[in-house]
Amino acid sequence: MRPSRRAPDELRAVSLERGVVKYAEGSCMVKFGDTHVLVTATLEERLPPWLKGQGRGWVTAEYGMLPRATLERTRREAASGKQGGRTVEIQRLIGRSLRAAVDLEALGERQITIDCDVIQADGGTRTASITGAWVALADCISWMKNRNMFKNGGGNVLRDNIAAISCGIYQDTPVLDLDYAEDSEADTDANFVMTGDGRIIEVQGTAEKTPFTQDEFLKLMALAQKGVGRLVELQKMAIA
Amino acid sequence: MRPSRRAPDELRAVSLERGVVKYAEGSCMVKFGDTHVLVTATLEERLPPWLKGQGRGWVTAEYGMLPRATLERTRREAASGKQGGRTVEIQRLIGRSLRAAVDLEALGERQITIDCDVIQADGGTRTASITGAWVALADCISWMKNRNMFKNGGGNVLRDNIAAISCGIYQDTPVLDLDYAEDSEADTDANFVMTGDGRIIEVQGTAEKTPFTQDEFLKLMALAQKGVGRLVELQKMAIA
Amino acid sequence: MRPSRRAPDELRAVSLERGVVKYAEGSCMVKFGDTHVLVTATLEERLPPWLKGQGRGWVTAEYGMLPRATLERTRREAASGKQGGRTVEIQRLIGRSLRAAVDLEALGERQITIDCDVIQADGGTRTASITGAWVALADCISWMKNRNMFKNGGGNVLRDNIAAISCGIYQDTPVLDLDYAEDSEADTDANFVMTGDGRIIEVQGTAEKTPFTQDEFLKLMALAQKGVGRLVELQKMAIA
Amino acid sequence: MRPSRRAPDELRAVSLERGVVKYAEGSCMVKFGDTHVLVTATLEERLPPWLKGQGRGWVTAEYGMLPRATLERTRREAASGKQGGRTVEIQRLIGRSLRAAVDLEALGERQITIDCDVIQADGGTRTASITGAWVALADCISWMKNRNMFKNGGGNVLRDNIAAISCGIYQDTPVLDLDYAEDSEADTDANFVMTGDGRIIEVQGTAEKTPFTQDEFLKLMALAQKGVGRLVELQKMAIA
Amino acid sequence: MRPSRRAPDELRAVSLERGVVKYAEGSCMVKFGDTHVLVTATLEERLPPWLKGQGRGWVTAEYGMLPRATLERTRREAASGKQGGRTVEIQRLIGRSLRAAVDLEALGERQITIDCDVIQADGGTRTASITGAWVALADCISWMKNRNMFKNGGGNVLRDNIAAISCGIYQDTPVLDLDYAEDSEADTDANFVMTGDGRIIEVQGTAEKTPFTQDEFLKLMALAQKGVGRLVELQKMAIA
Amino acid sequence: MRPSRRAPDELRAVSLERGVVKYAEGSCMVKFGDTHVLVTATLEERLPPWLKGQGRGWVTAEYGMLPRATLERTRREAASGKQGGRTVEIQRLIGRSLRAAVDLEALGERQITIDCDVIQADGGTRTASITGAWVALADCISWMKNRNMFKNGGGNVLRDNIAAISCGIYQDTPVLDLDYAEDSEADTDANFVMTGDGRIIEVQGTAEKTPFTQDEFLKLMALAQKGVGRLVELQKMAIA
Repeated sequence: MRPSRRAPDELRAVSLERGVVKYAEGSCMVKFGDTHVLVTATLEERLPPWLKGQGRGWVTAEYGMLPRATLERTRREAASGKQGGRTVEIQRLIGRSLRAAVDLEALGERQITIDCDVIQADGGTRTASITGAWVALADCISWMKNRNMFKNGGGNVLRDNIAAISCGIYQDTPVLDLDYAEDSEADTDANFVMTGDGRIIEVQGTAEKTPFTQDEFLKLMALAQKGVGRLVELQKMAIA
Repeated sequence: MRPSRRAPDELRAVSLERGVVKYAEGSCMVKFGDTHVLVTATLEERLPPWLKGQGRGWVTAEYGMLPRATLERTRREAASGKQGGRTVEIQRLIGRSLRAAVDLEALGERQITIDCDVIQADGGTRTASITGAWVALADCISWMKNRNMFKNGGGNVLRDNIAAISCGIYQDTPVLDLDYAEDSEADTDANFVMTGDGRIIEVQGTAEKTPFTQDEFLKLMALAQKGVGRLVELQKMAIA
Repeated sequence: MRPSRRAPDELRAVSLERGVVKYAEGSCMVKFGDTHVLVTATLEERLPPWLKGQGRGWVTAEYGMLPRATLERTRREAASGKQGGRTVEIQRLIGRSLRAAVDLEALGERQITIDCDVIQADGGTRTASITGAWVALADCISWMKNRNMFKNGGGNVLRDNIAAISCGIYQDTPVLDLDYAEDSEADTDANFVMTGDGRIIEVQGTAEKTPFTQDEFLKLMALAQKGVGRLVELQKMAIA
Repeated sequence: MRPSRRAPDELRAVSLERGVVKYAEGSCMVKFGDTHVLVTATLEERLPPWLKGQGRGWVTAEYGMLPRATLERTRREAASGKQGGRTVEIQRLIGRSLRAAVDLEALGERQITIDCDVIQADGGTRTASITGAWVALADCISWMKNRNMFKNGGGNVLRDNIAAISCGIYQDTPVLDLDYAEDSEADTDANFVMTGDGRIIEVQGTAEKTPFTQDEFLKLMALAQKGVGRLVELQKMAIA
Repeated sequence: MRPSRRAPDELRAVSLERGVVKYAEGSCMVKFGDTHVLVTATLEERLPPWLKGQGRGWVTAEYGMLPRATLERTRREAASGKQGGRTVEIQRLIGRSLRAAVDLEALGERQITIDCDVIQADGGTRTASITGAWVALADCISWMKNRNMFKNGGGNVLRDNIAAISCGIYQDTPVLDLDYAEDSEADTDANFVMTGDGRIIEVQGTAEKTPFTQDEFLKLMALAQKGVGRLVELQKMAIA
Repeated sequence: MRPSRRAPDELRAVSLERGVVKYAEGSCMVKFGDTHVLVTATLEERLPPWLKGQGRGWVTAEYGMLPRATLERTRREAASGKQGGRTVEIQRLIGRSLRAAVDLEALGERQITIDCDVIQADGGTRTASITGAWVALADCISWMKNRNMFKNGGGNVLRDNIAAISCGIYQDTPVLDLDYAEDSEADTDANFVMTGDGRIIEVQGTAEKTPFTQDEFLKLMALAQKGVGRLVELQKMAIA
């Protein structure tokens, strides 16, 4: 029995609310149960120096947690003077994942910056961030289409839906979408970033206590494919 | 005529929503029109080293803006590796203001940290922060009372209501609660932190273009007393 | 009775010595009693990037304290790797105050940097800094006039005298120009930056212990007007 | 045909040289072809503050590259004042992987720090680091056993061999142990950390260009199991 | 002919003014011509952690330049967030030199911190700093003697006078005490820290353009011995 | 008797191995006994901003130690966020020393960066670094000559051999090339950077315990000339 009484293959209640801040070209408040992340997409007509003049754009991401998003207050990274290792790792994952969804040549020499700020954390902040970031990104690209910023209409800029979900082995049972209570006890923890048709963008699996087998990993992957399928449906409804 | 068509002595629509995050001992989403700040109050049973063993507690504050709270994206302070001068100045003001509302001896050897994170900025983020922070602080102290953490019940810990508002001279007219459109054009800009009965905790006035007279300043102060009076009413309704 | 035996409306002995370092375009050693600040004004024919090409110049300030300017040694900010919150707050105030005295268009696309380094601190370092900085700034602008650096002679660059003084309520009496002994005990502490004719550039008042009333504040402002009037006389004598 | 003319399931020439520096409790120069990493293991009788008094030890890792380990010189992280995102991500992976091999309770309240410094980089520095780090770690634990530092002899401290290898899809063919020439062209890149019997400690797979399927991923995993099997043989020979 | 018309073995006008700030246990404004350095000595009853409990004290030094001590404004190190290489090198030299003059066991478990802040720089700031620092240090130790802080009176704490001077080869002539005009043109530049009787504490010689011979170096050393002899006389007069 | 049983004027076993990493334009693994330093020379067709357009190039150096190069692990400077004072001092010395060997005008508008990374430290890391760096630099310049990068063949770019050695007074005897056991006990410690014919580039001598006399210093210098003479022979053999 999961602490939340969910079935092993059951997602938490997921919501994707668009347009939650007024300035950003795209934004989304994504909730996976009690995990709430505010995502914005910012378009800028400039590129990092190492990318200039190559005829293609860039998508990058930054991640942060409000100090009291967590059970105990976490030190504010702006005050401690640097981003921690976990933050760096997560924002690199988000950026990589979203770039896989975008045709950077079609985007043109511009940068889209995704900001994921965790308002409340109950496990799965990186997967919620990626799932919500896709919605903010899609809105940003729509915003650009509406302003005729693409030569050929921009239909090809966003190649596919991208969503992410965690899975793990909790009390010997493979389960989908771990919350904090499960995550802190799980034996194995894996995050999957996938397209709507179940192909893999990124997979990260970690044995928290004992090594896992290939067979266990396949069970987690099957759960993830189911979960991502559902998340992509929700993304499509959100932007419809 | 103000850009927002408000009367000179009219506040923006103000809301103070409590309990907006689940972990914090107190929290408040404060909105002054399109300025939205999420405030949390965190209780910790420890003190900064220089305060230990003196028989009194401490209230401190940190302030931040989400990168896309603003019209153009602002660089994330955690990424740039330090808090900017404006941030430092504002969080010191918030902390000083709230300490004026608290009997630190009655609080006991504990620290309450107020985090003010600006979700959307349309002028007046520091005054909204202080006004909302008082609500989060009041809830934190209630939380402590409910757990019998004060010797004598804690009735005397929070001495008074504290709220803050900005005033300025916009097109030769003293106006209350400047939004960004006014703030960027105003001749004089003043922030008042006051108690419910109109006494002053902190006042900061700046001539943006031409020096102002004592008489002009008194007109701003009168507006502020009216505005703070209304904000304190709203605080009282919020925690009722 | 004030610890220094001064009358409530009496300044400390003030001196403004010009030309104290040989390289700077303007310099002033300002003393308010035992508070000694070395101020220099540096002219540079370049601007911060965000100001370029707008046809106007900039005045900015930096503030620092020698480690042993204080009763106990303060850690050197260069060694700790960042400027503290108090430093940032003060240097922003000095910069804002002086910009109010200068016609930035008439200055042209140049930057004047004011450095205020506290040699000895006995209260009121920010007000002494501003008062002395005006003298260094005036000398810097004279230096420029002597080299015909202004189209129309530069008579209009420096608009007005600017000086600053602190006031406070010490043992229930409003007093002018607090030294450290008073400052650490005062109930209310306010800093005023004013022009020679008593108009206000910046005012900052803080209730250290109990909130103050509008009436008390007006008494402090009246003292400040008197004090600034005297400081402006001294400035005029210094540059004569 | 691979640029190095290796078979798809062929490792580069691997060597694991022990005892390469004289002070460290364990050390290993690991070479995967032209990728050379110097690994040291340092035993210290102290723990990070958050781990003290819990009756167990810690294994952590730091990673760095000499500036000219790469084709073009990379800026020295000590000079730029912070470790980059890639460095942070890799050193966290190394630490997690090695902790999976160690019984931290049996280790006792001590810390072993693994330093992986890349002397020359030709792809696969993180997998070479982990593989060599296991050897340095094993020598460090032997060093401790020889000094009777474990209550029960220490036979159970090191639970299993751990090695790591990368795989990728290069020109539509799944290949083992990518060198830089392959890595920069590969479609999919995955790193596997495994035990000697093929169970998984950590897996990270990234679609560099197009998403990959579950079937492709399984082919990479099979290659990895073969490669890690061979690396574990080499580890056993090295410490024999 | 030297730019200053001095004889080759002639010092600039040197002055050593004691007691220039009111809080420090020792202080000295040292002037070597237009090079002016304010030195303070601070006594603290605490030691850096690595020195505690060893029965001896420590003398350390910090060095800084006011931004406009130089012909062109130098960036403030507190603002740039770190001390530059030259600063670090100089303050280490000052600290080493002064420790050579002090019996650290006799000092007891205390730290004296020497702060050297350059008010105006015209060459030779490090040698002026050391020469003035000895005076501030001597005053600090006298201050301690007057308060009976040493077991046996403290007569043995300060072992010897220490002073420093630069020499160089300017237009093929060895000259003493280079000012900036000479320093920037000199072929060889050497700094000598010596005791009153001509023994050497520290010597640093650098060939700025062409390597120098042993014979040339001996000529510089002879000049230095003469110069330090005179500086030590001045120190003795200053503290008499 | 020296701990290593060497004669007073005997160097440790010295080796200079070229071409130790495959990417650098020049490289050298230099060993002075158990002190091992990996040096690389990197050519870049760009200059620091302050040197651009002056018709000459630059040689600079960076220095680092692997964390476990030392008896006890030293904190990684990249992790602590800044280079320590000793590191800064040494890398400035290496850069200055090598610039003395190079005709910067003949080099042209390019920069050569020398990286000295200490693999194992047993005293004398700075002198070994300089001696090895000359070899890496010579190879880098040969690499450029082979590619016809100099107008006139480049025969004049490298002016002379440069090598460095330490000397000290150990148990009242002047000795050459101190190892760590001697260095930590020596009374006087001096580092000499010299050309092959015994002229001096840089000399730094420090009295660790008691001041030394001119006569003692001359004995150290004579030892150094002998030692550098031998090192230069070895350099010539290495690049032959």
